[in-house]
Amino acid sequence: MAFAKGYAATDASKPLEPFTFERRAPNEDDIVIDIKYSGICHSDIHQARNEWGNSKFPMVPGHEIVGIVSAVGSGVTKFKVGDKAGVGCFVNSCTTCATRDLDLEHYMPGLVQTYNDVEADGTTPTYGGYSDSIVVKEGYALSIPDTLDFAATAPLLCAGITLYSPLMHWKAGPGKKVAIVGMGGLGHMGVKIGAALGAEITVLSQSLSKKEDGLKLGATHYYATNDPTTFETLAGTFDLIISTVGVTMDLNPYLSLLKLDGSMVVVGVPEKPSPIHAFSLIGGRRSLSGSMIGSIKETQEMLDFCGKHGIVSEIELIRMDQVNEAYERVLKSDVRYRFVIDAATI
Amino acid sequence: MAFAKGYAATDASKPLEPFTFERRAPNEDDIVIDIKYSGICHSDIHQARNEWGNSKFPMVPGHEIVGIVSAVGSGVTKFKVGDKAGVGCFVNSCTTCATRDLDLEHYMPGLVQTYNDVEADGTTPTYGGYSDSIVVKEGYALSIPDTLDFAATAPLLCAGITLYSPLMHWKAGPGKKVAIVGMGGLGHMGVKIGAALGAEITVLSQSLSKKEDGLKLGATHYYATNDPTTFETLAGTFDLIISTVGVTMDLNPYLSLLKLDGSMVVVGVPEKPSPIHAFSLIGGRRSLSGSMIGSIKETQEMLDFCGKHGIVSEIELIRMDQVNEAYERVLKSDVRYRFVIDAATI
Repeated sequence: MAFAKGYAATDASKPLEPFTFERRAPNEDDIVIDIKYSGICHSDIHQARNEWGNSKFPMVPGHEIVGIVSAVGSGVTKFKVGDKAGVGCFVNSCTTCATRDLDLEHYMPGLVQTYNDVEADGTTPTYGGYSDSIVVKEGYALSIPDTLDFAATAPLLCAGITLYSPLMHWKAGPGKKVAIVGMGGLGHMGVKIGAALGAEITVLSQSLSKKEDGLKLGATHYYATNDPTTFETLAGTFDLIISTVGVTMDLNPYLSLLKLDGSMVVVGVPEKPSPIHAFSLIGGRRSLSGSMIGSIKETQEMLDFCGKHGIVSEIELIRMDQVNEAYERVLKSDVRYRFVIDAATI
Repeated sequence: MAFAKGYAATDASKPLEPFTFERRAPNEDDIVIDIKYSGICHSDIHQARNEWGNSKFPMVPGHEIVGIVSAVGSGVTKFKVGDKAGVGCFVNSCTTCATRDLDLEHYMPGLVQTYNDVEADGTTPTYGGYSDSIVVKEGYALSIPDTLDFAATAPLLCAGITLYSPLMHWKAGPGKKVAIVGMGGLGHMGVKIGAALGAEITVLSQSLSKKEDGLKLGATHYYATNDPTTFETLAGTFDLIISTVGVTMDLNPYLSLLKLDGSMVVVGVPEKPSPIHAFSLIGGRRSLSGSMIGSIKETQEMLDFCGKHGIVSEIELIRMDQVNEAYERVLKSDVRYRFVIDAATI
């Protein structure tokens, strides 16, 4: 047992504040990570404010974590002290069914989230990355490529895998036209990874304010969704549309942009449901699907892919005490493109 | 040019009434069909009452048509006088792109519907099967297997293909668990065809009133959706769910019945959109898709499959003057399972 320092939400209506708490003593299959950087994900805000109705307080958010291994259990083989390591959205999962072997453990019951959850023992709360250390089973820790800017790798652990997984599953690649809806923390990773996979990327953003960035990061086209002619111009264009938008919007106009047999995949989770017209799906055998993060194996594959292609997140590094202000700016889409907390400031 | 007798809706608010109209003179690639039977589809009611907002009056509904070829144009090779022939939901399509070669012409612009539409010449309205004859290009007419009850084959032209196409596309077959939502004209065809394909079929119907029929037609399980325990019992069960329901309902509980990577396909078209929660799709990489009828090639394949397996619709044969009463009964789900008009009574 060791004490950790961090920031916590103590209540859905209060700003985050300094918080000291206990991390569990490491078991033989655990590593201890001295956290260096932690990304801010929109889902941190949803949960800190109990917008999904399942919040446990006090809550230390953060599931885009990178740091340096400071201790390893006796059974650990993948990491040694001094290695760079990362933790994403979950720290344990069911291992009794075949799903883990299929690398789909993140869709199964038994998943233990990095924060706002309870360890498999049923009693110990999990606390996330807005803190100075974490204890995690080595099987749920990721190796971070040495060649990448360290702070800017943190958002790969959630934003990166959240886009990589559907891009791979729905086969984005050469010859495929892919639209990324939303040019934020998730969206800009979709642009980078999708372009690196060889797909032709179009950004659909509310306005053209980030157009220059989008084209620089790998998009071929950039359209404003506040311009109604966008939906006429692009009707029937895309094999795949990935919506990263976390607020409720009318998805029917986006579905009309799909080719025959095209898929729209939502990875953002708005608070409220979106009304879907049957005609939007039936006319073109279109699909609306969802995708959630990725398995540990796929996350490592994504990190290795990013290492090879020099892909990191575009970040704004902040001090821990700027977190509440950062939350407000995320909600106004006023970040290019991901806030990362410098854990040295905790 | 020849006169045809039929029944038409003259206005969205009026019952159907006797109507005499002109059929175009047959061209060299046309056949003339002496209509024998015509099925009543829920979409006939939607359109006769302008519930989809695109109705053209006067309207002669009907797109589940079978009859005997009474004349053939000089260029016709597929049919001869005296053959059984059928017409489904469309009578022409775009032939200039590659889509027709892909047998996906029914999803393309340029499709000419059997009724409530205008021929490719841009001026001649199309009139459907509630009539005594029809003139159709041979390429859009289907051969009807001789071994099947003739009247009961009519509903295969829409209800049959509407279920066959998604069952094939989403690979229903041995080892697959498939749910059919709604035990009506469409649903009962899904049970028969899905079971013949080797899938394990579960019917999800409002009540258990048609359970005996469902099991007799090929379902292995039958559950009532007005019993909330159904959704607990069957959570995460199905590879594929096909919803045949034509009224707006909450699809989220149904999505929870899908396995990881499962698909729910809507083939019924409710008037209003259904609110979909992102979580319903994201938690299990689930998809909500749409499917609409099938190509001419696939429709012929379906008819041949039904011929081989002895599959027809369960029907209630009615006189033409019973059509308005039949519409009311369809809306109350009071039909086992498809009304078919005997054209001899027109």
